[in-house]
Amino acid sequence: MDPDSLAKAFVEHYYSTFDANRAGLANLYQDGSMLTFEGQKIQGSQNIVAKLTSLPFQQCKHNISTVDCQPSGPAGGMLVFVSGSLQLAGEQHALKFSQVRKWLGSDSRLSADIICD
Amino acid sequence: MDPDSLAKAFVEHYYSTFDANRAGLANLYQDGSMLTFEGQKIQGSQNIVAKLTSLPFQQCKHNISTVDCQPSGPAGGMLVFVSGSLQLAGEQHALKFSQVRKWLGSDSRLSADIICD
Repeated sequence: MDPDSLAKAFVEHYYSTFDANRAGLANLYQDGSMLTFEGQKIQGSQNIVAKLTSLPFQQCKHNISTVDCQPSGPAGGMLVFVSGSLQLAGEQHALKFSQVRKWLGSDSRLSADIICD
Repeated sequence: MDPDSLAKAFVEHYYSTFDANRAGLANLYQDGSMLTFEGQKIQGSQNIVAKLTSLPFQQCKHNISTVDCQPSGPAGGMLVFVSGSLQLAGEQHALKFSQVRKWLGSDSRLSADIICD
């Protein structure tokens, strides 16, 4: 599988896990990972998942519009830029989101993650 | 200056150079830099600046809304996520833009750059 297709498969796996079982995202981060969420910096897989599971909505569905990626670093890493929309249960309008992730290809985890709505 | 302030100063320098003298951006990339522009991958400082100077507008003004950054890599690098709007001369409405840059702190150049409107 070429790097672009791998990155897209990872992005789809990430958001389908987010929508179905947010706690399962713990496996996609590592202790050194950092999430920036609306300007707040959160470090480590456990803290990141605690933040994501505490968001004030339960059911949601991500729809991905674009995935752009570039090789990053020597270990097969990728820099991935995702944009799309987030539909919350019971809400008429979808929210737009964009997200940057630095993905460590070698062990399939995210080292850096920035969410900006 | 702390890393966040340095990254913001770099972002302001980049966009004021873009708006005033696009050819001057050559100094902010290196031969190994990659730009992804609307899905197209362009490598190397010269090719990137050729692409940016060939865009079908002359005068423009970037207005930055958010700058989020994280440390990336061992050499003082930063992953920077910028969102804002782009006002073109003679156009009533501004375009939204978002851009990811991986900035090599050590020599103040960009290694990776993804533009997504």
